[in-house]
Amino acid sequence: MKVDHLYTPCLLLDRKKLNQNISRMCNHINNLGVSLRPHVKTAKSVPVALMCAGGETGPITVSTLKEAEYFADAGFKDIIYAVSMVPAKLPRALALLKKGIDLKLIIDNANIAKEISAFGEKENCKLKVLIEIDSDMHRAGLSPDSEEVIYVARALHDGKGTEMVGVLTHAGESYYGTSENAFVKMAEQERHAITTAADNIRKAGIPCPIVSCGSTPTATFAKDLTGVTEVRAGVFVFQDAYQAGIGVCKKSDIALSVLTTVISHKKNQNRIITDAGGMALSKDYSTRGTSFDCGYGLVADIKGNIIENLTVIGANQEHGLISTKNGDLDFEKFPIGTKLRILPNHACMTAAAYDTYNVMENDNEISEQWQRCNGW
Amino acid sequence: MKVDHLYTPCLLLDRKKLNQNISRMCNHINNLGVSLRPHVKTAKSVPVALMCAGGETGPITVSTLKEAEYFADAGFKDIIYAVSMVPAKLPRALALLKKGIDLKLIIDNANIAKEISAFGEKENCKLKVLIEIDSDMHRAGLSPDSEEVIYVARALHDGKGTEMVGVLTHAGESYYGTSENAFVKMAEQERHAITTAADNIRKAGIPCPIVSCGSTPTATFAKDLTGVTEVRAGVFVFQDAYQAGIGVCKKSDIALSVLTTVISHKKNQNRIITDAGGMALSKDYSTRGTSFDCGYGLVADIKGNIIENLTVIGANQEHGLISTKNGDLDFEKFPIGTKLRILPNHACMTAAAYDTYNVMENDNEISEQWQRCNGW
Repeated sequence: MKVDHLYTPCLLLDRKKLNQNISRMCNHINNLGVSLRPHVKTAKSVPVALMCAGGETGPITVSTLKEAEYFADAGFKDIIYAVSMVPAKLPRALALLKKGIDLKLIIDNANIAKEISAFGEKENCKLKVLIEIDSDMHRAGLSPDSEEVIYVARALHDGKGTEMVGVLTHAGESYYGTSENAFVKMAEQERHAITTAADNIRKAGIPCPIVSCGSTPTATFAKDLTGVTEVRAGVFVFQDAYQAGIGVCKKSDIALSVLTTVISHKKNQNRIITDAGGMALSKDYSTRGTSFDCGYGLVADIKGNIIENLTVIGANQEHGLISTKNGDLDFEKFPIGTKLRILPNHACMTAAAYDTYNVMENDNEISEQWQRCNGW
Repeated sequence: MKVDHLYTPCLLLDRKKLNQNISRMCNHINNLGVSLRPHVKTAKSVPVALMCAGGETGPITVSTLKEAEYFADAGFKDIIYAVSMVPAKLPRALALLKKGIDLKLIIDNANIAKEISAFGEKENCKLKVLIEIDSDMHRAGLSPDSEEVIYVARALHDGKGTEMVGVLTHAGESYYGTSENAFVKMAEQERHAITTAADNIRKAGIPCPIVSCGSTPTATFAKDLTGVTEVRAGVFVFQDAYQAGIGVCKKSDIALSVLTTVISHKKNQNRIITDAGGMALSKDYSTRGTSFDCGYGLVADIKGNIIENLTVIGANQEHGLISTKNGDLDFEKFPIGTKLRILPNHACMTAAAYDTYNVMENDNEISEQWQRCNGW
């Protein structure tokens, strides 16, 4: 099928760019002597996860238990659920363990460690747990040098229903970097934090086999990963306008776009209206207020050539509003029915509105449709 | 099942509030002598649409052809697809017509009118079409007094494959009102615009049976709907923090919320972290910069009591960051595992991440699960 024959809005996935993005990251991480555990939260799609390990069901990171279940059904065994575990969700984790999945959980609290251990003991199993470390005050986790790290590690190590398997951090603040130099420093800061935590745990006599870090910016620019055993990164598979804006990739690397149709002309407001609104693009406007602000996404023609003077200025539920940055819109260039492509600000959020990727070859032909999993 | 036993994040729908919101709107519109054609884009769920017509499959408005197909399968016959039609989508409309669905389309362009007519003629059917009118420069549509309205009406009326069935407008700018007085004026402006367009068309000798207007703010505050035949409104069924903020409803009217769990404490940042992030809440931050800014949603306890001093300051993919507006967070009040409810900024966007509503009675018991349709 040709791209032009698809109903809009829908997702296009450029296979060549996807391949290139994955190869680049795999090569870089492997060259640093570390293994990649891709965060599948971006694509949430089996074929993409397979590509990250040369067609194998390699180690993965998930952001929801639904993803864990979906990938487990597809044969993936080695899974880290990288959002703090709470006891109420343990029955779903247990169900995966009973299916033979090597599921690993993360926590950052000693009481939760004890509750998980009590659950494991009751269920006659050992739940593998990593401790989340905060390397940059971005989100969750314990400070790498804190006493609490040792306390939690000991609770997990001594717990009859838990196995302390490592430490994990995510340098989320790297999204606010704006230069290669900054990313290199953040990558080193992330490495230093996570290896410090691991070393402290080992000094306390507790094993710490997994030392896991990662974010697309730090993974892309890391120069040295001594002491790290694995890198997690997610959005690199698709890239997006935000990553291009901060300099992690080029705009031409962005593999994901929303195909949309011009549905109305508002000449008295210098706008065209498309059928890709807030539902189709997401309401993510993470480029707002940055030097690379691109509204609700970069506007491109059906071949993917970015039209630099156009910007998505509004995103109502099913209406996208596109106007010019400068001058009058040439409405004759975009008659109603014209197909455009919008390259998203944030690929993870945009993809979540869809259940299917239309896999595109040569900016023209749809060769396959890949499913994705959504929800929790 | 008790609310506390649900896996989080998930959607809660308070049946009593839903009932009250629907009754209030139905009564108001019926008292004005006009029929309600609810916009089902908010709930996208058959049981909610049935409630809007006393259990019947009444007239509805949809925002996607997927919704049209979903509701048609459930027995709804009288459907307006209220997003500008483009010729490439006509085969899906035709399939619905062939199933006996009274589907009506909207357009705002004479060339498209002719293309639709040509399609209808070729397929040996008459496609019913309304003309979209712009009553407030919010989005799409023709200016009510413009010559083009007559031109499009004539194209539809004379077209062998089309039937000109009416005019339609949506006072989207009413979302920027902030007082009852403003909403009353906007409702009258909307009524004036749409009846002007209808009158002009009739003066030109062309029938214009349907005169359709609506938005939740204008529908709520309209005092007079003379000349209007039907009102469309959508978000009123659930209401949300935005509608409460502009004074269209009370916070206590909000029927939809996201149930979430506290998953981490960041004491050194005065934050708790929950499992309702940008995916679960949507990235809609429409209250940003308003006097009623509430971050990514209003925070409530598991019973739905709003905790005024808390606010969702951040929404990463699967992490919500909650902090206080003033003073220190009392972490002991919110141990890890605590369930909270987040009342969304924009119910339509938040609900779209889920396929199921957990219908809740008395803030405690889940009596039913209702499915919704997503995508295109």
